[in-house]
Amino acid sequence: MVRFEEDVSTPARLAGPGEGIGRDELSLATRNHGLPLEGLRYDVTPPGMHYVLVHYDIPYAEDDTWELTIGGRVDHPLRLSLNDIRSFKPVTTRVTMECAGNGRALLSPRPVSQPWLVEAVGTADWTGVPLRTLLNEAGVQDDAVDAVFTGADHGVERGVEQDYQRALPLDTALGDEPEVLVAYAMNGAPLPPQHGRPLRLVVPGWYGMAHVKWLRDITVTDEPFTGFQHTVAYRLRHDPDDEGVPVTRIAPRALMVPPGFPDFMSRTRIVRPGPVRLEGRAWSGQAPLATVDISTDDGATWDPATLETPADHRWAWRRWTFDWTATPGPHTLTARATDAEGRTQPLAQPWNRGGFANNLVQRLPVHCTD
Amino acid sequence: MVRFEEDVSTPARLAGPGEGIGRDELSLATRNHGLPLEGLRYDVTPPGMHYVLVHYDIPYAEDDTWELTIGGRVDHPLRLSLNDIRSFKPVTTRVTMECAGNGRALLSPRPVSQPWLVEAVGTADWTGVPLRTLLNEAGVQDDAVDAVFTGADHGVERGVEQDYQRALPLDTALGDEPEVLVAYAMNGAPLPPQHGRPLRLVVPGWYGMAHVKWLRDITVTDEPFTGFQHTVAYRLRHDPDDEGVPVTRIAPRALMVPPGFPDFMSRTRIVRPGPVRLEGRAWSGQAPLATVDISTDDGATWDPATLETPADHRWAWRRWTFDWTATPGPHTLTARATDAEGRTQPLAQPWNRGGFANNLVQRLPVHCTD
Repeated sequence: MVRFEEDVSTPARLAGPGEGIGRDELSLATRNHGLPLEGLRYDVTPPGMHYVLVHYDIPYAEDDTWELTIGGRVDHPLRLSLNDIRSFKPVTTRVTMECAGNGRALLSPRPVSQPWLVEAVGTADWTGVPLRTLLNEAGVQDDAVDAVFTGADHGVERGVEQDYQRALPLDTALGDEPEVLVAYAMNGAPLPPQHGRPLRLVVPGWYGMAHVKWLRDITVTDEPFTGFQHTVAYRLRHDPDDEGVPVTRIAPRALMVPPGFPDFMSRTRIVRPGPVRLEGRAWSGQAPLATVDISTDDGATWDPATLETPADHRWAWRRWTFDWTATPGPHTLTARATDAEGRTQPLAQPWNRGGFANNLVQRLPVHCTD
Repeated sequence: MVRFEEDVSTPARLAGPGEGIGRDELSLATRNHGLPLEGLRYDVTPPGMHYVLVHYDIPYAEDDTWELTIGGRVDHPLRLSLNDIRSFKPVTTRVTMECAGNGRALLSPRPVSQPWLVEAVGTADWTGVPLRTLLNEAGVQDDAVDAVFTGADHGVERGVEQDYQRALPLDTALGDEPEVLVAYAMNGAPLPPQHGRPLRLVVPGWYGMAHVKWLRDITVTDEPFTGFQHTVAYRLRHDPDDEGVPVTRIAPRALMVPPGFPDFMSRTRIVRPGPVRLEGRAWSGQAPLATVDISTDDGATWDPATLETPADHRWAWRRWTFDWTATPGPHTLTARATDAEGRTQPLAQPWNRGGFANNLVQRLPVHCTD
């Protein structure tokens, strides 16, 4: 008898002082991937550049036989084929999605998990049917409190064998701000396998863990969901015994397209003296984005960036620009987003044991040389 | 004055004993990515799952203004728009591409560079115009020896500022086995930015470094090319002062779809007792693939896998299957490819300082549990 806990699935831990990235973290980093930051130039992230985080395996799905079941505290349990789902009026929403673990590998001490730096983000046009359309079709009963979403990806995590499951409170599941989608297309094409083919949940404004991929079941419950991904994972905790606070919506963040050109190995940037147009994107899943400020002296002074007028995309990132005059020597560039309710990015790390929702400002070292 | 060599671009080095993956290696691992091995199930790798390795930045290319110039030792220098290139009769070739650095992070001592495990591979249908069609249009002169390909990606590497450049001997550039393509489509769609949009070279059977992305110039020379990516990088060397042997064609390799399901963090596989259909892909860029052998006891004994009949795709991987009966306990699964000229995968690491062309067999630990 193999015991998951002892042989293959060890408890969460923090890296020791100076401990490099381990084989386990590297195994995740070679299969999952971030947005190369020059990809921030695109309004909609080109296919294959959008970040991907898969907990277990990418299921091999056949569109023709896929079924989504809807049950639990509903009047009319449903069993829907992809064609059934496509028969509802489609809605397309542009959504910036970010992994809750973005920034984890920059934390000290470092929580040992998927080792993101700052690049676990992407923006796509998602097309599907509003979740509330399906739930209304099924008829949610009066005593219902949560909708539980089950994906087809199966694995072990911290000793617990599971299908990936997350839930939403019913007021969120039925709400229109954001409007949750059951999506079957990304940028006008069927979902790529790694993004949930054939169906995924899209919860605009929430971190990636809410957007359940390979969605095969929705169960409405009359008790709050207490599954692994709610009660063990995806909570902000300082100590292992803390009850913790659930990770939900995306904190404000700005990222910069690294200017100039890189060194292959160190990724340090080289720019030439003179005018340099800095640009990037910023977003918030909480209150709408309000301002982006730029520092070219490692945070000593700040100046506002020019923020592009929001288009008709409440849940997508916004482009910003800033004109800088580079002078010879080393510089550290930083961008900082603030939302309409005054939430801003911290200048010192907001540490927690899971490494979640870390929106510490990006610090970009640049060498200006003739 | 910033000196690239000292400040941002240090010499190649080997990791020390027990040294974990560093921030520099992680910066490459978060932007480049491999094929999640369950993606070996597909004949043609779905968009976004194909491995990507970018030396510098992904250039932001506008299709409308892109030009490919062809010059040097030719009778009629050419300046071709994308429409000019699309006006030639298109050819589509299915090609398995593998990074020359695949397997590097498993080497001991570990060369510090892009830290691949075994997943830097993918297969696509590439559409374009044969390179020799363009070279014949330009009229190669009698004293020509090399064709030099320049990409638009620009950076510093080991102290040397450069556009990415690689060359092919003219007999390869003009040959038909393999037939080299200047490709503008991948799987029937325009190239994604990270795969070279709008133009890349495709050299079937060669490691990825030959397939120059963001191709903007071809210069025919009457001297052998001695650029950085030929004389410094991409050579098999044991000691830093060795002249070394150039990295060219892909050595035989087999990979297995990891059976069962994974632990999130360790990626260890869990299978249930009983029949397990093992499957994977195998390929060779040298002589055609001949056999795949499987060991389920960490290399003690070997049995042949069933290899699917080759379709009309000389340069693509082939699917293999093997029926295994799992018994409770730990097992190590291995697949080993051999080509028609008897080249096979080593069971001990074929070490070199760059970590290139390492086709050590994959070792896949599996726990079988009730």
